[in-house]
Order: sequence, then structure tokens, then C-alpha cells
Amino acid sequence: MKQVSKIKELRSLIQDAKQDGKRIGFVPTMGYLHEGHLALVNEARKNTDVVVMSIFVNPLQFGEGEDFETYPRSEERDREMAEGKGVDILFLPDAEEMYPRPMRSAVNILQGTDVMCGASRPGHFNGVATVVLKLFNMVDPDAAFFGQKDAQQVAVIENMIKDFNMNIKIFPAPIVREKDGLAMSSRNINLSPAERKEAPEIYKILQQAAALIRNGKADTAMKEASEKLYALKAEVDYLELRTFPDLGKSDGTDVGKIILAAAVKYEKVRLIDNIIWEQ
Amino acid sequence: MKQVSKIKELRSLIQDAKQDGKRIGFVPTMGYLHEGHLALVNEARKNTDVVVMSIFVNPLQFGEGEDFETYPRSEERDREMAEGKGVDILFLPDAEEMYPRPMRSAVNILQGTDVMCGASRPGHFNGVATVVLKLFNMVDPDAAFFGQKDAQQVAVIENMIKDFNMNIKIFPAPIVREKDGLAMSSRNINLSPAERKEAPEIYKILQQAAALIRNGKADTAMKEASEKLYALKAEVDYLELRTFPDLGKSDGTDVGKIILAAAVKYEKVRLIDNIIWEQ
Repeated sequence: MKQVSKIKELRSLIQDAKQDGKRIGFVPTMGYLHEGHLALVNEARKNTDVVVMSIFVNPLQFGEGEDFETYPRSEERDREMAEGKGVDILFLPDAEEMYPRPMRSAVNILQGTDVMCGASRPGHFNGVATVVLKLFNMVDPDAAFFGQKDAQQVAVIENMIKDFNMNIKIFPAPIVREKDGLAMSSRNINLSPAERKEAPEIYKILQQAAALIRNGKADTAMKEASEKLYALKAEVDYLELRTFPDLGKSDGTDVGKIILAAAVKYEKVRLIDNIIWEQ
Repeated sequence: MKQVSKIKELRSLIQDAKQDGKRIGFVPTMGYLHEGHLALVNEARKNTDVVVMSIFVNPLQFGEGEDFETYPRSEERDREMAEGKGVDILFLPDAEEMYPRPMRSAVNILQGTDVMCGASRPGHFNGVATVVLKLFNMVDPDAAFFGQKDAQQVAVIENMIKDFNMNIKIFPAPIVREKDGLAMSSRNINLSPAERKEAPEIYKILQQAAALIRNGKADTAMKEASEKLYALKAEVDYLELRTFPDLGKSDGTDVGKIILAAAVKYEKVRLIDNIIWEQ
């Protein structure tokens, strides 16, 4: 595995690979890797020839009062995991390399950010889209790999790629879960023991509700799920049933993909989870 | 010259050229070509191997009440001129090909659009940057060629390329003028005979002012130039002295590049002109 921190070095490595006719697969991350990230690396290895992973905790996508400072970081551990999983090029830029001067241009997401995470994190998806566009332009990948836990992020990126005519195929990968059902997240480490014990309830609540919705009982499902979420120690951020990837309102009877998504806030950590199905 | 109207065909031609090791030069235009555009083609031929020209009157960069409908168009004439000048690939998409659905993402220019043309055309540069980003992603050029008449546009595009880490070199080309000094513009055809007769005054006024500014008399220069502009039949949009490409305020004593720029509105046509010099 080659490790680089400068864009110039990264471009040079990728140019060499492309000249050898290799297809580039890209896994952008914020580090503190877990099995969810590693599943993306597996997908990238299956579908492309050279796997590039970036690790960068992007300040642009954190709002005021959010957890940029406490977001878990562990470069050495990440490097070992990435190498062990077969990442070919690990890109570890610092903030100066990514944002050498104040930005004079940014991506503006015009639709689909007034709901779900977008509603509670204003500017978040503009920050995500901007850094992803920058990274795409550095890596110039044939395909990029994103986890479905960040379902709204996947929708935003897919829209951006279409809108801007980027020639990149997106592979969304299923959520990887702990044995007790909790969706894997770098942030889980910042849960207190009591919060960690309770957190798997979120997925159980979503599962029960999804089953009811599939049986035509969306109203009951949403009411019960909401009550159960509010009974948790966590503060409820949202519980929403929407079409996917359009994120339009759904009453559970839409034909096509549907997403049932929730976000809750524990003391130091905001958790999200979702179930997507086709009907 | 190959002419295509579909993105897919364009990509295929460019991919072939790249596989042959050719460097791609790109000249984006809104058509109704004149010597200014052809000078860009010359520059492109000098600096790259395959010259791609696009012709697309981009609705996204026209505001309400602006001249999108009356912007001059002449596909056949443009095709002949482009072919005569050695364009290799002419890309002529229609609006459906460029914007097949409402845009959900756009480029947002965060700085430098509250002055000059940006101040009088709100949203204009977001529309320019968005279509240029789309075209860049379709053409994937090594270099792109823009005229300095649209100086603020050049500044916006250069900033966007840096901000988004695009691997494209921009070549700005000097303004090409009619014999009487009027800056060439596709819009000149929409001037009335009396307006066309008066319009070269704009450049004369700028020239006289620039000479005074270089002699340390910026205040006098701006006052006199302003009076002369207001004496024209045209409505004065702005007369500004700024640093370039930062577009910060200038009192004429700055070291580095300076731009003296003006915009005026005739009945159907808004004209812009500028002089850029280094001191």
C-alpha cells in the first residue's frame, strides 16, 4: 500500500495506474475505520483494479456545535486496517492541503436537503458535496463506493454526479451492523456504556415499523415507532418515511424504493439508521 | 470537423483522441462566432492537439428580463466558421441534452460576484460556473480557452478550478476589437445603427482613463470617465477600478494586475469592456 498526503503525489500514482489501463475505485472516508468501510473496500476490489481510500475529517460538513473536535481519529490503526484489506493507495491530506485558502466556490445542493439530516444539519450536504467533488477531481475514479447508512448522502452524491455530468459510477453498499443490530459508525465509540446498550433499539424499532408498513399499516407503524423512539434516553431528531432516492413524502404505498430513516441524539453522539426496501 | 449533439457521442470521440495520446483543448461558446472566438481556437490549436468547441446558449446564466430570447444564433454560419478555423469537434447540444431534468445541484460562487457584472446580474456567475463545470466534465480537457472581455468570468472560472481541484489549465486571451475599437461581441449585432456608431466611445473612455491612472491620477480619471460614460445614449451600469483577478477595490496604486471595467446598457444590448494592465 502506498500512502500519500499531497495531491500532486496522489495524481502521479493514479496517472501511472491509468496508463497501465487500470480502473480506479475510490472509497472516501473520514477514518476511524470499521467493518462498514472495509465492506466498501471489498466492493471496490471486486469492481475495479486499483483501490484508493481517502481519510479526511472534512471541517466543511460539520456545523457549529457539532462533533468535529471529538470525531474519533486513529491514523495508525486506520493505516493497518486499510493495508490489511488491500487498499492500494491511501490518501491522508491535512486541512491545509484540502483548503489552502478560503473557498470562493462551493457546491450548492438545491433539492432534498430540507428533510431528514439536511433539515437538522443546515449546510452539511453542501459541505459533503463540495469535498466529494474535490476528491473526485483529485482521484478521477471510475467508480466510488458509499455506505447506505448515509442514505441521504448517497442520494445527494448521485444527483450531483448526474447534474454535473461526472463520469463516475456510484456503488452504494448495504449497512454493516454489530451483532446486536446497531449500525456500524465511527461515532459509536463516543457512546456512553448505557447509551451503547440502548442504541440497538433504534434498528429494532425501524424493523418492526418497516414490517407493519409493508403490511399496509403505515400510520400505526409510524405512530408506534415514534412512541418507542421517544421512550429512549436519546433525543429524537427525526423519524421519516420517504421515497428513495427522491426523498419525497411517502405514505408507505408508493411503488419503488422506500426509506424509513431515523436520527437520534445521545449526549455526545448523533446516530442515524435506516431501512430501504423496494415494493 | 466532427459535429455531435449528444454527450455520449462527444465522450466517445474524446476518449478515442485521448487513447491516441492527444491533448484536448476546449473553447466553450454561446455561438454567433466572431474573431474573438476564432482567436481562442487559434490559441487552442497552438497549445493542444484536438480542439473541441461547444456552442450552447445557456439559459441558466440569463436572468429574468435579460436577452436569452434575442441572443443572436446562427448554427450554419457558426459551423462554417468553426470548420474553417480548424475546430476538430463541434459540440452542439440542445437544452434537453444539457438539462434533462430540473437541476438538484449547482455551483455557488461565494466571492467576487457582488461587484461588476455580478452585482447587476444576480445568479449569472452561478449559472456560468455550473454550465462550465458540466462542459468540463463532458469534454475532460487539458486546457480551456476564454476571452478576457469577460474578465470577471475568467476570474470566477480560475477560482472554481482551484477550489474544486480540477486539472485544467486556463488560457485567457486578449480582447479582439473592431477597427474602431469596439470590443467584439456576439451581441453587437443587436445594436441600433446609432448605438453601434457611439459604442466605440466606451473603449476610448477606458483608454484615456487608464492612461491617467497609470500617471497616478486615478481620482481625476474615474471622475472624467464617469462623466463621459453618462453623456452617452447608453445607461451606465458600472465603471470600476479593481485588482485582478481578486476584484478587490483599487485606488490605482496597487502593485500587480489592475482592471478598469465598464458596462453600459443600450436599448436591447448590454455591453461590457475592460482594460487590464500590470503595474
